[in-house]
This record gives sequence, C-alpha cells and structure tokens, in this order.
Amino acid sequence: MAAEIVNPRSESAGGEGGTDEPFDPAFALHRGGKMAVVATVPVRDKDDLSLAYTPGVAKVCSAIAEQPELVHDYTWKSQVVAVVTDGSAVLGLGDIGPEASLPVMEGKAILFKQFGGVDAVPLALDCRDVDELVDTVARLAPSFGGINLEDISAPRCFEVERRLQERVDIPVFHDDQHGTAVVTLAALRNAAKLTGRGLGDLRAVISGAGAAGVAIARILIEAGIGDVAVCDRKGIVSADRDDLTDVKRELAGFTNKAGLSGSLESALSGADVFIGVSGGTIPEPAVATMAKDALIFAMANPTPEIHPDVAHKYAAVVATGRSDFPNQINNVLAFPGIFAGALQVRASRITEGMKLAAAEALAAVVADELSAECVIPSPFDERVAPAVTAAVAAAARRDGVARR
Amino acid sequence: MAAEIVNPRSESAGGEGGTDEPFDPAFALHRGGKMAVVATVPVRDKDDLSLAYTPGVAKVCSAIAEQPELVHDYTWKSQVVAVVTDGSAVLGLGDIGPEASLPVMEGKAILFKQFGGVDAVPLALDCRDVDELVDTVARLAPSFGGINLEDISAPRCFEVERRLQERVDIPVFHDDQHGTAVVTLAALRNAAKLTGRGLGDLRAVISGAGAAGVAIARILIEAGIGDVAVCDRKGIVSADRDDLTDVKRELAGFTNKAGLSGSLESALSGADVFIGVSGGTIPEPAVATMAKDALIFAMANPTPEIHPDVAHKYAAVVATGRSDFPNQINNVLAFPGIFAGALQVRASRITEGMKLAAAEALAAVVADELSAECVIPSPFDERVAPAVTAAVAAAARRDGVARR
Repeated sequence: MAAEIVNPRSESAGGEGGTDEPFDPAFALHRGGKMAVVATVPVRDKDDLSLAYTPGVAKVCSAIAEQPELVHDYTWKSQVVAVVTDGSAVLGLGDIGPEASLPVMEGKAILFKQFGGVDAVPLALDCRDVDELVDTVARLAPSFGGINLEDISAPRCFEVERRLQERVDIPVFHDDQHGTAVVTLAALRNAAKLTGRGLGDLRAVISGAGAAGVAIARILIEAGIGDVAVCDRKGIVSADRDDLTDVKRELAGFTNKAGLSGSLESALSGADVFIGVSGGTIPEPAVATMAKDALIFAMANPTPEIHPDVAHKYAAVVATGRSDFPNQINNVLAFPGIFAGALQVRASRITEGMKLAAAEALAAVVADELSAECVIPSPFDERVAPAVTAAVAAAARRDGVARR
Repeated sequence: MAAEIVNPRSESAGGEGGTDEPFDPAFALHRGGKMAVVATVPVRDKDDLSLAYTPGVAKVCSAIAEQPELVHDYTWKSQVVAVVTDGSAVLGLGDIGPEASLPVMEGKAILFKQFGGVDAVPLALDCRDVDELVDTVARLAPSFGGINLEDISAPRCFEVERRLQERVDIPVFHDDQHGTAVVTLAALRNAAKLTGRGLGDLRAVISGAGAAGVAIARILIEAGIGDVAVCDRKGIVSADRDDLTDVKRELAGFTNKAGLSGSLESALSGADVFIGVSGGTIPEPAVATMAKDALIFAMANPTPEIHPDVAHKYAAVVATGRSDFPNQINNVLAFPGIFAGALQVRASRITEGMKLAAAEALAAVVADELSAECVIPSPFDERVAPAVTAAVAAAARRDGVARR
C-alpha cells in the first residue's frame, strides 16, 4: 500500500515554482507537507451528510454528553495522539522554534501511522513557560487519546511531563526520554544475554544527563542493572556535587551505588557498558580501559561518541543511532506500539511496567537471530509493533490503568 | 472516490461489541470516528525514512529556521485548518462540553476535506475563559494555516475571534457567524434579483442577536441593504434600550435606521425580508403583515421559525436550514471554499471583502437556474467550492492580505 502513495502536492507545486528549490531530495519530498486528513465515512449525498453531520450527529453528541465514556467509541479520540513540541530541542539542531520543528513532528506523525496504525497530529506550540505548556496541552486533552511530547528541552521536559500527567486522564509520554530508554533497554538485554551476563552483572556509564540520559538511567535501575553512573559535562553525577539541578540531585540519589566521582573517563575504567546520548567524543584510551566484552551504545547523531571502528576493538556489541551501522537504537521501534497498546485498552497513563514490558517484547522479537550484529530488530521488522502493542496493553491491564 | 470510502473501524468494532448500540444508523456510522490521518509520502524502507525523518528532515528544519516563510512550502501548515470549539453552543444542543462536541467537529473536518480539499483537525478545548481560549489557540497557530472557530457561545465568541485575530497572522473565522452570513447574503442577493429588487430596496428583520444574527446584520449592511432591524428576545435592538450588551449596543449603532422599537412582530409589519436564526415561532398574523413578495429565510433547525407551508402563503421566496426543503442555507456552501481560497494565497486574515466576494461567487453559481426554488446552489453542486475559492483568493489579493 505504501508503494502506491504519491504526493500530488509535491508534484504540482514543484512544477510551478521549484526553480529556487535547494538541490536535495529531502526538499522535494517535503513540498506541501507529508500528511493529510481523510474521511473514513462517505459524504456523497444528502443522506450521508444528514448522518455524518446534522441532524444525525446530534444524537451521537447527546449520547456522549450523557455518558462521557462513549467519546471513545464514537469519535476518533482513542485513535489519535497529539505530537506536541515547543521546538526548543529539535534533533541535534537545538532551539529552532515551533514552525521549523514542524517537519520533524509531521515525520513523527506519519511514523505513528505507518508503524503503529495510530493517527497523530503535529502540534508545535508557540510558548515556552512550563505553566503555559502544561495549561495548553491539558486544554487539548479532550480531543486526543494520548500526548506524545517531543523535542522539549531539559530540564523543562521533566516538569512538563510530570505535571501534565497529573492533570489529564490520557497517557503523556515524552518520547525523547522514554522511547529512547525502552529501545536502549531492549538492546542491552539482548547484548547481555549474548555475552552470557545478566543485567545485574553490569555496571553502565551513561554520557548525558538530559532527557534521554535521565530516562535511560531510570529504566536500567528498574530493570535491575548492577550499577549505573550518569555523567554530564562536569563529570559523574554524584551526591557530593553542589552544582546539581533538582533532576540531577534526584538522579544522584538512585544511581552511582559505587559512589564514584570525577570524570567520565575515570568512570569508564572497568565499566561493562557505555551509553552515549550526549554527543562529544570519547578518547580511545578511555574506551580501552573498559571491561572485557564491553557493550558500547554510542547513540549520538550524526557522529557517535565512539566511532564503531574504534568501539569494535574493545566491545562485544556495538550499537549506534545511525541506520547505516548494525544495531540502530531507533525510537520508532517503541513509540508506535507503546501508544497503540495504550490506546487499545484506553490506558489513563503509561506506567513503568508498560515501558518495561515494551522493552522485553522488543528484545524478544530478535529471538533466534540474536547476534552481535543483531541485538535489536530492524524498524521495518513487521513483528515489532504487534509484539510491543500486545505487551503494553497487557501490562496496562496488570497495572490497573486500562479502561477496557 | 468518496464512494469507495469504507470505515474499517466501524465494521470490526461493530462486530465485537455492538450489541448495546442504540438502533440508529448514526451510531453505527460514528463508531471509531469519522476521520484518519494518512502519509502522503512513502515510508517503505530505510531510504524513505532517512528522507522523511532523520537525518534528511534536519535540512528542511534548518531551512525553515533561517527563512520562516518556507514553513508554508515544506509542511502541511498551509493545507490544514484547526476546527476549534469549547463545546459551549453545539448545534441546537447548547453547552454539552468539549468531548460531546467532538462528533460535530469531526464532521466539520471531513466536510472541509470533501468540499474544499482542505485538511482539518478537530480541537475541542477544555476551557471557557476568553483569555484562556485566546491564549490557547494563539499558541497553536504555528501548526495551522487557519483557525475555524465553531460552536462557541455568544457573546464570548465575538471577543475570542477579535482578540485572536489580533494575535495571530493566519485567518480566524467563526463559522457560526460568517459562514451563515455569507450563505444568507448569497441567497438574499438571488432572491432580490428574482423579484426584481436591489438589496438597497429591502428592509429586513433578523430574529436572533447571537453569533449568526449579528454577523448577518453586519454583512447585509456592508452589502448595501436598505435597512435591517435585529430582534432579540426582548424585541428590536434599538439605541433607546438600556439592557444591551456591548455587542448589541454596537449593533444598535449601525442597524435600524428607521429607528423602530418594540416587538419583533411590530418590526415585521411592511418588512420585505425575514431572517430567522433564533428558533421560536412567528405567529402567522405577523407574517401576514409583511410586504408583498416577501423573502422569508426561516433558518432554525430542526423547526423553522415559520413553517414553509405558512411562509409560502405570503412570500415570493422561502429558504430554511433544512435539507428536505428547497433553498437550504447550509454553511458547507461557504466555509470550505473560503478557507481554500485563503490558504491558497496564504492570507493573513479573512477580510470583509473576502466574505462579500464569497457571497457574490456563491450567488453567481445559480445563474440561469435561478427560480423561487433555487436561490442558492445545492451543497453537492461541484461548481460551488472552486467558484468561492477563486473569488476569495482574488479578494485577498485586492485587500492586500495575500502573502503569495
């Protein structure tokens, strides 16, 4: 079906005014946007109109007014997710504002549809204040079955997510945090298995204490990793530092059991796992000090913190964020199925149990194909989304957040 | 194409849990909602993904960050309208809240697509305060090419629209006001023509001083009607009344040249035109006092203020809001083309000139078919949207609000 999709807008618009278009296929593809809305019911004649619109629609409205939960049955609410950003931390581009972030949000929306069958609407908001973001998105909640927060800079993203989830009865999920964390955990599970270790045997070092780093640290602890040290630009996040934000202070409380302090390089000495979500480059001599059969996940894009050629000298498994190397840690492996599962059971939130279940299901897809070059499935593996969806829906029921 | 549309959701969902569904085809049709999002570009493989999403998308984002107007070229912004409500004045149902209003907003969204080729997203907001509504919608503006306000109660709707349009650089259009006004004016133009009169020859009485009544009064004055008296529940809105809201006081300033005061019935005496947008019933003896060849537009739904059988005794032309009588005053004749025209030229607002042009174009579609039974085209007349679109785009250029 995807093969038949054409973009009439790009063709017609390109024909008429494409002379000054940059010579890059991405621009041609993006002309006119990447998505559209379609009716799923006919509107051919008076009779159709009188059912889908007035007067027929009035009965449906009245029924929902009397029994509010019917909104899930008789509207697209439980099929549709808002992809919300303020444009403050977009890809590696940083703070480019809401309009310039729209191509990413549209891209996310079509990935939701393609991989999870979930409708999604890009909403790039013109506000930055945490109160304003929370208020705005909370007011939008009646129209959506879930909120995917995207590319909102740390540390605001943590507070926005937490406060928003307190206000609304639909799932709020900051994908830069939890999507990344789920896929990382899945890959790490398989990498540990491949090298004959349990998660409890591993000591990990995370480079980056932003959205992704904090969420990865949290999920690894929940999954039972031996120890994890998170490093920001000033080194290991440890309780003895007096320059920590609230989020990092909390992080220091539940990570770094070993009580390390000092530089990222010093933390790497003897570590089993490196997880890079920060950019920058790790000097090879520091990589060389890691434990035997190290697991190196250098996920910065486009330049991994440790180039795979270097990493392979010391590591049993190497993963990156890039599609041109094996083992791509790609959020698209998680968010479509996570939301599809949550929407399927009309979950009121996404629990830690649902995220852990997503990671386990994702890891399990690899099964017999498990190898150093394959600790995580391809984004185009069609088993992924159904497996994640089913696991998340079941976990939502177990955790008591499912509404059907 | 519309004939091929099926709703897989209604079928599958209906099969599984439809036993307690009310016996009404509207419920079956609404199951799972009436719309979906689709990708207009392929996402089949790694190469597609690297163009539509990272890393390819980053170049497009950077280009927009440098040249903000490119957002219109490389996203769906200029193809998509937000259909915004607070659920406070939905159809004839009144204040049923945001969730229960969603079926209407989805219906509106699919009409936008079906009749104007415009993508539209239903946004039912959980807030009522004018400041909150204005702030919320203004923050959403980066993602949309236009804002269609819908079913927001008067008098808040007037202030919301005015203040919002001051804040954003995309068109804000309250359809309950202006859509109704445009279609009414179009029908009235043709009815006057049919009976050999100019608009300047006509004295009109409008029953209802809410969103529609105020906007109709305004557009009729702009179009050059002889005189118009607007009536609310207390009678004719006239400067000598001391119970007027700000909006009605303003109305009193530019309507009712004749200086009438008193009841709606007294205003009807000798009037050429009756326009009902209020509900209630006009007693036949009052209808009988209207001028010869009266034009009666009794638009309340489902019960016209004057039943067509009664109206025909006294009127040369009768119009209603219903699809089962001739001359249906249906907003779908206006809003899809008005937004399509505004989006086509990336208008920053919808001017009075654009609304008048829409009404003229709509009236002109009837042309040779003009008769007492046909002063306005059918919503399914395929000439309508292109005619309105072209007229609105041209008027936007004339009025200097077009950006291309």
